Amino acid sequence: MTRSHRGTVSVVTGTPALLTDHYELTMVQAARQSGTADRRSVFELFPRRLPEGRRYGVVAGVGRALDAIESFRFDAAAIASLEGVVDPDMLDWLASYRFTGDVWGYAEGEAYFPHSPLLMVEGTFAEAVLLETVLLSIYNHDSAIASAASRMTLAAGERPCIEMGSRRTHEEAAVAAARAAYVAGFDATSNLAARQRYGVPSAGTAAHSFTLLHDDEADAFRAQVQTLGVGTTLLVDTYDVGEAVRLAVEVAGTGLGAVRLDSGDLGLVAREVRAQLDELGATQTRIVVTSDLDEHAIAALAAAPVDAYGVGTQLVTGSGHPTCGFVYKLVAREGSDGELVSVAKRSKDKVSVGGRKYALRRRSPAGTAQAEVVGIGDQPADDGNDRNLLVPLVRAGEAVGRATLEEARARHRASLDELPRAVTMMSAGEPVIPTVFER
Amino acid sequence: MTRSHRGTVSVVTGTPALLTDHYELTMVQAARQSGTADRRSVFELFPRRLPEGRRYGVVAGVGRALDAIESFRFDAAAIASLEGVVDPDMLDWLASYRFTGDVWGYAEGEAYFPHSPLLMVEGTFAEAVLLETVLLSIYNHDSAIASAASRMTLAAGERPCIEMGSRRTHEEAAVAAARAAYVAGFDATSNLAARQRYGVPSAGTAAHSFTLLHDDEADAFRAQVQTLGVGTTLLVDTYDVGEAVRLAVEVAGTGLGAVRLDSGDLGLVAREVRAQLDELGATQTRIVVTSDLDEHAIAALAAAPVDAYGVGTQLVTGSGHPTCGFVYKLVAREGSDGELVSVAKRSKDKVSVGGRKYALRRRSPAGTAQAEVVGIGDQPADDGNDRNLLVPLVRAGEAVGRATLEEARARHRASLDELPRAVTMMSAGEPVIPTVFER
Repeated sequence: MTRSHRGTVSVVTGTPALLTDHYELTMVQAARQSGTADRRSVFELFPRRLPEGRRYGVVAGVGRALDAIESFRFDAAAIASLEGVVDPDMLDWLASYRFTGDVWGYAEGEAYFPHSPLLMVEGTFAEAVLLETVLLSIYNHDSAIASAASRMTLAAGERPCIEMGSRRTHEEAAVAAARAAYVAGFDATSNLAARQRYGVPSAGTAAHSFTLLHDDEADAFRAQVQTLGVGTTLLVDTYDVGEAVRLAVEVAGTGLGAVRLDSGDLGLVAREVRAQLDELGATQTRIVVTSDLDEHAIAALAAAPVDAYGVGTQLVTGSGHPTCGFVYKLVAREGSDGELVSVAKRSKDKVSVGGRKYALRRRSPAGTAQAEVVGIGDQPADDGNDRNLLVPLVRAGEAVGRATLEEARARHRASLDELPRAVTMMSAGEPVIPTVFER
Repeated sequence: MTRSHRGTVSVVTGTPALLTDHYELTMVQAARQSGTADRRSVFELFPRRLPEGRRYGVVAGVGRALDAIESFRFDAAAIASLEGVVDPDMLDWLASYRFTGDVWGYAEGEAYFPHSPLLMVEGTFAEAVLLETVLLSIYNHDSAIASAASRMTLAAGERPCIEMGSRRTHEEAAVAAARAAYVAGFDATSNLAARQRYGVPSAGTAAHSFTLLHDDEADAFRAQVQTLGVGTTLLVDTYDVGEAVRLAVEVAGTGLGAVRLDSGDLGLVAREVRAQLDELGATQTRIVVTSDLDEHAIAALAAAPVDAYGVGTQLVTGSGHPTCGFVYKLVAREGSDGELVSVAKRSKDKVSVGGRKYALRRRSPAGTAQAEVVGIGDQPADDGNDRNLLVPLVRAGEAVGRATLEEARARHRASLDELPRAVTMMSAGEPVIPTVFER
């Protein structure tokens, strides 16, 4: 596992302005027509519920969202492509667009629950509504990955998890997935762009193709050990596992770093391989398992002699829940008298609560979370037990709430440590704390 | 619905070279060490199965994959980020990397079945293995979306489908999803970047926030009609649907383009709204429905007076199958005697078939597909009944198989028209044609 020297530099290429729905622009054009475009507005990004059976969710994508807000500009090519979507007057307005409002939100890595107000975006209607699509895209994707990843790292306990799902998701989603998994406790990724852009440590073993390329398995193992050292991880299930393990120790010696198993009954095979490695004197050689793992498969291997988990498909697809279902709703806006008024859609099946929100994690004197408290109006002072959840992220258009990925990882661990112990249960259940609305 | 004048220009920003797994690079370094890196190799990208219950799949992402192959270069920033991953000699090799081999594959829009050899990539091991991750990412994502989209457009029949799922997936995956949905018969997208990059027609209505921004619904409708014309689509379920429909026709007149319903029992409400519109004289005003639609919900609305479907979450998440599970396996490589030999991993649960493949769609004299025929060796001549499926995509590193999106749409329609009629069934079932291996 190696780490880039470049640290947490974020490399966003191009502007995200066109990663936006057509109607955001036509709505602004119409609001400019009716004189309402500049009404001060508050949008809330929140989940109506957790995915069925999940006990908590994890916020990720905050840093990427801040990048998107700061770089959200319509360049000449973007403007040219919008002819026919909006009128020339609106194109002029877009050409000088930048977000100048304020944003508060949950810190990256924080746990969330139904109706947690994850982002409060305040600005003119026109400025704030244009951010809807890209903010939802980032939060819905990254938080889905982090929420799945968090359960996997809980199930793995002290054993490291390595993200290797890039090939099973969109190539750019893969980079964001590696980042989100790292926030939620993964130790490394296979993805080299996540290493470059975000400083996530990268790691890798070898594929079956590498063994098949060589005239025999011994040639392949020798080539890998010669160039990558005895600390490397040899893939031992291309032909016969027992023979490959014998050969691996013969080639690399008892100092061999690890072997990887990618097929079969992993628990059973891991026991056999552990016994064989020990018998060969390779007692420190680790066993890495991969092959369609999810949090349940990881938990089921807890008693097996496994040292690390490589997780792919189920991680990058959110383990059955590839999106969070977050929505971005107007909850308050300036009225014709200049006062801010709460607004909400009247719909039986899609409930929203109007008004600018605050959010607290209510804790017992011992520090255990008891409820997610959501209220309307100004945030009360932090009393030491109730922990304020909304932190300033953007002030007058400038990002003020950037955190490093290490800080987000620490926030994730602290947030989980504070929750009731049922958080570790992999079975389907209710949210581990209730959401309570206060007035 | 409007279309960009920019046509199918593809705008790929930056190099995809780091959208790659760590181990691809270390394997090449080790193969260079053992003298096997330049062995001529054939990799095959294929599905082991269809998602459970699906009767066919649809290939998408071919054009994006060709872009990725042609632009796959390690620039100075990429090389700098790889210090510590591979040795300096390997960094030099990467700096001059380009793919100079050949690729054959299924045309974009084509139907596929278990073990269809969707791509055959031939080159040196080193050149061909480096493309593994990004090719799989593109194919696994785009084909998952197209496979779901195809079922949706089949279920919708003559009624148009509009893709509006950008907010529920990664922001760049959203662009690729809009493109893949268009290949599989969607009429338009909400995504403005898909319009800019690929010329997919974009469309949009308005959000609830737009109605809530105004002092009352009438103000909102007037603003929208004044700036976008009476042909616009008014969202009528913010407060009371009946009252909103009355108001919509009052404001826009009987020439109103459409109304959108986004909540409630869509079939029931659509009938009430149709009756009300007709009574008000707005007999040409269309009804657009949205709200967590999938192919089953679309099929269930076949008898309701619905004119268009807006599809979001279920489209961009592949309607339960967000990834295709395609793999990229070495199936043949040069031996020490210079001859190409077939290779395959021996594993009970993950079957591969060695050898360079051809593929035919076997058809009856009447032109109905009967089997997916996969054989090893050179492709037989097209006999008019059996249709060859592998077309040249890349020759000596240069893309030769580019198709426009309109050609891919035509290929999709023709491919489906050729399949047995069971292809239109939305229920779970077996692949509509079997896959047959020939020697």
